Amino acid sequence: MAYILESGALPDIFETFESQVRSYCRSYPATFARAAGSVVEDASGRQFIDFLSGCASLNYGHNDPDMKQALIDHIAGDGIAHGLDLFTMAKAAFLEAFVTHVLQPQGLDHRVQFTGPTGANAVEAALKLARKITGRTNVIAFTNGYHGVTLGALAATGNRGNRIGPSLGLGGVSRFPYDGYLGTSVDTADLLDRMLDDPSSGIDLPAAIIVEAVQGEGGLNVARPEWLRCVAEAARRHGALLILDEVQAGCGRAGDFFAFEAAGIMPDLIALAKSLSGFGLPMSLLLIRPEHDVWLPGEHNGTFRGNNHAFVTARVAVEKFWTDSRFAEAVAGKADLLGQRLAAISGQIPGTRVKGRGMIQGIDFGSGPLAAEVARRCHDAGLIIETSGPNGEVVKVLAPLTIPIDLFNRGLDILEEASLVVAASQRAAAE
Amino acid sequence: MAYILESGALPDIFETFESQVRSYCRSYPATFARAAGSVVEDASGRQFIDFLSGCASLNYGHNDPDMKQALIDHIAGDGIAHGLDLFTMAKAAFLEAFVTHVLQPQGLDHRVQFTGPTGANAVEAALKLARKITGRTNVIAFTNGYHGVTLGALAATGNRGNRIGPSLGLGGVSRFPYDGYLGTSVDTADLLDRMLDDPSSGIDLPAAIIVEAVQGEGGLNVARPEWLRCVAEAARRHGALLILDEVQAGCGRAGDFFAFEAAGIMPDLIALAKSLSGFGLPMSLLLIRPEHDVWLPGEHNGTFRGNNHAFVTARVAVEKFWTDSRFAEAVAGKADLLGQRLAAISGQIPGTRVKGRGMIQGIDFGSGPLAAEVARRCHDAGLIIETSGPNGEVVKVLAPLTIPIDLFNRGLDILEEASLVVAASQRAAAE
Amino acid sequence: MAYILESGALPDIFETFESQVRSYCRSYPATFARAAGSVVEDASGRQFIDFLSGCASLNYGHNDPDMKQALIDHIAGDGIAHGLDLFTMAKAAFLEAFVTHVLQPQGLDHRVQFTGPTGANAVEAALKLARKITGRTNVIAFTNGYHGVTLGALAATGNRGNRIGPSLGLGGVSRFPYDGYLGTSVDTADLLDRMLDDPSSGIDLPAAIIVEAVQGEGGLNVARPEWLRCVAEAARRHGALLILDEVQAGCGRAGDFFAFEAAGIMPDLIALAKSLSGFGLPMSLLLIRPEHDVWLPGEHNGTFRGNNHAFVTARVAVEKFWTDSRFAEAVAGKADLLGQRLAAISGQIPGTRVKGRGMIQGIDFGSGPLAAEVARRCHDAGLIIETSGPNGEVVKVLAPLTIPIDLFNRGLDILEEASLVVAASQRAAAE
Amino acid sequence: MAYILESGALPDIFETFESQVRSYCRSYPATFARAAGSVVEDASGRQFIDFLSGCASLNYGHNDPDMKQALIDHIAGDGIAHGLDLFTMAKAAFLEAFVTHVLQPQGLDHRVQFTGPTGANAVEAALKLARKITGRTNVIAFTNGYHGVTLGALAATGNRGNRIGPSLGLGGVSRFPYDGYLGTSVDTADLLDRMLDDPSSGIDLPAAIIVEAVQGEGGLNVARPEWLRCVAEAARRHGALLILDEVQAGCGRAGDFFAFEAAGIMPDLIALAKSLSGFGLPMSLLLIRPEHDVWLPGEHNGTFRGNNHAFVTARVAVEKFWTDSRFAEAVAGKADLLGQRLAAISGQIPGTRVKGRGMIQGIDFGSGPLAAEVARRCHDAGLIIETSGPNGEVVKVLAPLTIPIDLFNRGLDILEEASLVVAASQRAAAE
Repeated sequence: MAYILESGALPDIFETFESQVRSYCRSYPATFARAAGSVVEDASGRQFIDFLSGCASLNYGHNDPDMKQALIDHIAGDGIAHGLDLFTMAKAAFLEAFVTHVLQPQGLDHRVQFTGPTGANAVEAALKLARKITGRTNVIAFTNGYHGVTLGALAATGNRGNRIGPSLGLGGVSRFPYDGYLGTSVDTADLLDRMLDDPSSGIDLPAAIIVEAVQGEGGLNVARPEWLRCVAEAARRHGALLILDEVQAGCGRAGDFFAFEAAGIMPDLIALAKSLSGFGLPMSLLLIRPEHDVWLPGEHNGTFRGNNHAFVTARVAVEKFWTDSRFAEAVAGKADLLGQRLAAISGQIPGTRVKGRGMIQGIDFGSGPLAAEVARRCHDAGLIIETSGPNGEVVKVLAPLTIPIDLFNRGLDILEEASLVVAASQRAAAE
Repeated sequence: MAYILESGALPDIFETFESQVRSYCRSYPATFARAAGSVVEDASGRQFIDFLSGCASLNYGHNDPDMKQALIDHIAGDGIAHGLDLFTMAKAAFLEAFVTHVLQPQGLDHRVQFTGPTGANAVEAALKLARKITGRTNVIAFTNGYHGVTLGALAATGNRGNRIGPSLGLGGVSRFPYDGYLGTSVDTADLLDRMLDDPSSGIDLPAAIIVEAVQGEGGLNVARPEWLRCVAEAARRHGALLILDEVQAGCGRAGDFFAFEAAGIMPDLIALAKSLSGFGLPMSLLLIRPEHDVWLPGEHNGTFRGNNHAFVTARVAVEKFWTDSRFAEAVAGKADLLGQRLAAISGQIPGTRVKGRGMIQGIDFGSGPLAAEVARRCHDAGLIIETSGPNGEVVKVLAPLTIPIDLFNRGLDILEEASLVVAASQRAAAE
Repeated sequence: MAYILESGALPDIFETFESQVRSYCRSYPATFARAAGSVVEDASGRQFIDFLSGCASLNYGHNDPDMKQALIDHIAGDGIAHGLDLFTMAKAAFLEAFVTHVLQPQGLDHRVQFTGPTGANAVEAALKLARKITGRTNVIAFTNGYHGVTLGALAATGNRGNRIGPSLGLGGVSRFPYDGYLGTSVDTADLLDRMLDDPSSGIDLPAAIIVEAVQGEGGLNVARPEWLRCVAEAARRHGALLILDEVQAGCGRAGDFFAFEAAGIMPDLIALAKSLSGFGLPMSLLLIRPEHDVWLPGEHNGTFRGNNHAFVTARVAVEKFWTDSRFAEAVAGKADLLGQRLAAISGQIPGTRVKGRGMIQGIDFGSGPLAAEVARRCHDAGLIIETSGPNGEVVKVLAPLTIPIDLFNRGLDILEEASLVVAASQRAAAE
Repeated sequence: MAYILESGALPDIFETFESQVRSYCRSYPATFARAAGSVVEDASGRQFIDFLSGCASLNYGHNDPDMKQALIDHIAGDGIAHGLDLFTMAKAAFLEAFVTHVLQPQGLDHRVQFTGPTGANAVEAALKLARKITGRTNVIAFTNGYHGVTLGALAATGNRGNRIGPSLGLGGVSRFPYDGYLGTSVDTADLLDRMLDDPSSGIDLPAAIIVEAVQGEGGLNVARPEWLRCVAEAARRHGALLILDEVQAGCGRAGDFFAFEAAGIMPDLIALAKSLSGFGLPMSLLLIRPEHDVWLPGEHNGTFRGNNHAFVTARVAVEKFWTDSRFAEAVAGKADLLGQRLAAISGQIPGTRVKGRGMIQGIDFGSGPLAAEVARRCHDAGLIIETSGPNGEVVKVLAPLTIPIDLFNRGLDILEEASLVVAASQRAAAE
């Protein structure tokens, strides 16, 4: 009953049958067949270094052998695949590992809610819970924030290209400038605090403040720890819940397991998804301070909130990478290398700058078309890499955290050459 | 690095660390370990017949051997797990199989949008697209409709227990009585048509009408084909898109692949999820008539819209069950059996009635506590079964479509005995 | 400093300088100069019988001599004109008269809120207060209801022509069919009660039910007393406030001072405006049961909520017409005459029917253009009369309640002749 | 039929029968009987100088003799009182005077829409029209903006005390800091422009920007002309309509007829109310650039949009005060006097400062209770004056523009003494 696809017919299948909404495949038109570690291979056998990592959903690379084996064993042993929110062995094992190795060492006593398996669903649950607890409607979100595209989550997302359906209105969110949005001379946390204090500012007291410690889609903007602490304090003072959206920057991407750790804050709610399963399988969580866990049974639900395959690999990911500090230290080392190499590239191209931190850094080329051209050249040279930012002006390095140093350098070599060639041809065109 | 869980500690783990929102596990407190076909087994080795089927997400039973083998092969061969919306071999194969064996035989020329992997996400995408196309805000939904719990989808869902967050308001939906809601003497499609025609009815012209052919969560209400045709015609006449939510009743549950097939209508948009992957893995689709496929690239997106594991099993499901009519015929046979046995049970208990059609039928006990007691007794006797309906008054049989006849009868035996005992003790209490 | 306008230049002034939004003047293009009792006169001296009465804002006719004298005395004596919500003599006198002669005889112990001077503002205040009290969002309103065009009030209004701004969404209102909307065989109050009882109907529990006892703009639909009582009971049972919108049908128009009196119900909130001042001056009230008067000072406000000129004439109106039952009896007599004469007209024209009650009755011609043609011919013959209903199909008699019998009959003669001529020419055209 | 009220019973009447929502009367518990020019008199014959002017609704003082005579003549001659939107002589005369003497000299070619008679209604019409024209939902409003309390207008108003009804949500408005909100080092118009330019800022492109040139209720904040020009340019660049809310600061209050004149901008829409009628009668207008006058007939309406009494006095106000520059010059002289005297007072009290411009100036005492105590002492000494600002910290002088110099000085003497006494007692308490 095996299915035979002719490689040549592949693009036609998608062109004919799949919706116009498809997006990434327009930049990387290959049809991918398999992947391992930091390398993906297309149907014709061509290999690419992966600096995309499933948009940070594959922080541990593709098909990690330990997760892979555990998953195959689970399936072969007729382990539960789909468990709703029933108790299962795989969920118990994940919970114990996650609480023991991730939450407790950070002093986090949060309860774990298994939401529907997407980051947007965790954000929807967080916003719903904060509104239930406070009886308030309004939520504070920030410029360039990205929180998903279902209607509740979308209201908090900044990107106008995603914010369609204005005919309904995406209500209940007040928008404030993120750290650094107005340059270094204006502390935008002051503006927030000022307007929340002012009873005539027109900003209704919020149920929650939702924030990313590093804005991935928004262009690798990094919040300073002191800014995050001010925001946390503003939330506390004004009776709002603090929600950290760790969907993209969490799970080690920014260095620590949580991107907010460096700020020393205690979020009320934390949304996790993307690399949580470790294997790219759909899974997300909402972490809830115990006093806020006031859900009624089934009040928020979802058919796929018990993806036991993901629980299996997620447990292995925790046990393999987060039981001591060695992995975080290795990531820190790669992050330093990344920062140095990007600085070296940027230093050769006037008008560019390095953004981000940890293993979510990139180069702002100041122009979407320029950045797209760099990414296109990388692709041609065997490197998959994407752009982000309001106008797509930032080439974003999202290599697997597990990438071997030499492969990492080879990928960065490609990025460097592409960047310089594009910059040179632009200079030539300008003269 | 293997993790050892002592079976006795399991409930404690969930009680201590998991959010209060958990729901099904309160009725079935066992910790499940493995499952095959129509039988699940808990950590202590006790087996249960499964009439829940992951709320219709496991129409082909647990760990179908063909899907299982294909999935293990895929994983073992380092097949892509997480593909965003990139072209992959697994997606191509699924697309070709699905179009060839499911869509084309029905004369459906819809384009396939891979949304985020939940039914709610497919519904969100459908509502967003309909509002984009029409420039209208309002959507018509029906009493007892269930469409998910993210904010856009939730607005269309009827259940008050889920509709929390009234502080935001769940706007943009006008609610109408479903077929039969006012008894047989009132055709509620007339009311809909009348109010859409009346420029002063207060019902804004809708972007879409969203409807289930059989309401699963709402209590196994079945729309008559002629009612569905009237609704479809109302949509057409008033310039609204017709959205069929086939998340629960589709994928063979009501007999045909699509529950709406019997009505002979042509929906503009169709949402599929739950049993789509065949294996219980998160996956959903929105089917879009070609003229409505006006998405811009990436306008609706989602990290987990390329769950390639699900594509693999979904392809096998299509190829195994839907290439000819034999499976549908077998399902029809079991549905007849189910109807007869439920009628026999109901016939012995005054005040009850059989509801639903196909393999989504049940008994309305007229009382939530009564139905819950029946389900509890079933569980004690080794049968997992759930209730649905506005007050949980309907015991709902959602057996795998693949369940062997003898096992099916054994499960129904348990249901019969539990029903009769509960009815008898209720009569005794009343006397 | 007197300003001289040449009569010939008048239409040009409006055409050139006034917004396109102007409406009534398109049907009655005369420029009116003065008016007394039931007769208005244009700049050229031509007189018209007034069956429009400022859309029920002039129930006591134009320039009632007693009100006029009291107002001139007030102005001449430098009485307060604009009083915000300060205590003034004119307000005290109105309050005492209104409470003594209107509220107390009906057993109404409501507090009086002077809202901004329009009916819409009273409705806005009512909806805001009901939402504050209940903490709920939703409001039940009915087909063809008309409650004003500010955004809160507009959400409750049915007419699509007024419901523009769909880009924002007019949220927070669930719409139900008014009494009789589905014919005589379906009691729409049952539908309401059923859907409020059903926890899965998708209708959120309402803060309020807002209803008119007679729908003026909606086409002279009359709610039966028993239907109103069912609606009142539904509100009580479900914890919602009952709001009676008496803006058009109150102040004697339907016979009693309040149009709901015949139903023997006790509304929680009552909105009054239009004829409240008696003289056509802007003034409105919200009546609030004492236990619901939970406003904080200034929580709803408005610059013109203290129109003392209106208080002066409103007091005279109460003292002149409502201190005993004679006026109501005289109105009842005229209403009988009106009903008989309309029945006689309708009896001669197949396809028409009489609608309404009291002094708010009319003939439904089944066609907007036909009704408009009748109104046009009336105008040409010296009678000002308007149409209402979803498609403008109802010619609506809104004569002053004080109109002398002979003048009333002369007006009805004109209406009869116009109706018959239009019906005859339509028959001729059809043959 | 005359009604006899005993002066002593007056407070009881209000206490017993009027809603708790009453507000101003709590500060000024006298029952007022009559008023002329800048003096009001209570029932006991006590006189007060009026620095409240009906919250800027009585810019020409109480019962101006010319308006009074014209109004009495109109009433005595049975002039139309209530005219819906019919053509009337009084409306024609007002229109001609207003266009000739107010609009045309400013080069304003706007069409005149007679909305419902309140400022909020003009704002509602403006927002609705802007959304209709642009097809956009969002509206930009500013901190401390005040635009009324109906639901559409309320969404744009900043004051939390008024923004009740959070259960519905006051959607569709994005809030920005007004000029000076972040001190002199940050130009808040830059922030607005930056966030409108940024496609990922989360601010949806707006239908309109609504702004006051001077914020009256918000605490006498003055926008610099260059800031207003930047805002106007931002509106133009981003396809939004510019709405000037001149309800409180217009009609000469800030010096010129329109408060925005000094900025040399051309608003798309202008809302006028309060002092428009000149006599305190309810009347408001929306001025619409001809290309934006796309209303359908009756698309926005309202029973009291033809208050002909107000048209009569409004015409006299225009003809008496605005046919040449003498009145504006006299107002400018008084504004200088006011500024000097307030500066002299403020100079004696550390921690205070003068705010506002023209005849809408006041002293910011930095504390609501302090300002309230000053107002209370003024009241005891025979001066009616109110506070404004987010915390009521600004004592606001809103004297009639027509106030004689000596009376003005007497009022300011009272204010000075009250201020100094309160400041002294506060210093004493602090020591």
